[in-house]
Amino acid sequence: MDLSERIRSIPDFPKKGIVFKDITTLLADGEAFASSVDQMKSLFDQYKPDIVIGIESRGFIFAGVLAHAWKVGMVPVRKPGKLPYKTVSETYSLEYGEDSLEIHVDALKAGQRVLIVDDLLATGGTARATANLVEKLNADVIGFCFLIELEFLKGRKLISDYRIESLIQVPM
Amino acid sequence: MDLSERIRSIPDFPKKGIVFKDITTLLADGEAFASSVDQMKSLFDQYKPDIVIGIESRGFIFAGVLAHAWKVGMVPVRKPGKLPYKTVSETYSLEYGEDSLEIHVDALKAGQRVLIVDDLLATGGTARATANLVEKLNADVIGFCFLIELEFLKGRKLISDYRIESLIQVPM
Repeated sequence: MDLSERIRSIPDFPKKGIVFKDITTLLADGEAFASSVDQMKSLFDQYKPDIVIGIESRGFIFAGVLAHAWKVGMVPVRKPGKLPYKTVSETYSLEYGEDSLEIHVDALKAGQRVLIVDDLLATGGTARATANLVEKLNADVIGFCFLIELEFLKGRKLISDYRIESLIQVPM
Repeated sequence: MDLSERIRSIPDFPKKGIVFKDITTLLADGEAFASSVDQMKSLFDQYKPDIVIGIESRGFIFAGVLAHAWKVGMVPVRKPGKLPYKTVSETYSLEYGEDSLEIHVDALKAGQRVLIVDDLLATGGTARATANLVEKLNADVIGFCFLIELEFLKGRKLISDYRIESLIQVPM
């Protein structure tokens, strides 16, 4: 199945000049959704993680399914103010300004093997920040898994010390 | 397994006087997470839906796993401005003021059987709004499934015309 045919390009979203990759058409297609999750799982079966992290909020969808498939836990990494308990925070750069991501201080145990999942690898800022959060909690990142990789943004460079897998590559 | 022991109560979040039910401790426990999803699935196996809707954003976690388990599609219902394509909107009341939820205009086909999933049934405002969105697209709500129901808020009353299941009931 060619998953790239199941996503939809929306010009000028969220702002002028950006072509947004809309994954809702893939998610709504039961066969395509199952295939994407099953492919992600097979890419990391041999490195079986103890925990799957999902980055807010579309990352939650894939992280939850993968965690359930391996019968392991799922941990959310969220935008500031969303997690109710004590958090550790990591700031990263945006095109203009900066933003932060948070994880609960007790979300991971030292030494746990963590797979980080999101729908999209763009500039790599959120991915890198998430890896830093995992390391602050003394757990180990075993890799990253994305549905889509916008290769022209070279986000891979920011997390080049880890295994990185993506199902759909967008070259330009 | 007593799932209620796997959630954590956080006093005064997001504001003074509210006791927030933190599900991240359940999610991070692979056995408890798997058990919760498997219980949700068994409650609706006999009404097998064509589509599972997840309400932003914790609802995405459970909706994705259930959709994958049934090999059907998953559709997100989101806060305003998050969905990139044309949307239908529904406004609902909050304690002070109002808020809206959106769904893509082409997210559902007429007559599809839809299960609506969220982590929490509180006042029922978002649940009712989501059912209205499904009906605007001429699809059929077969029921609601929640991890937690705050019974003292009586949210069930707002969606009493549908089948409602929850795994953890909080009486007061």
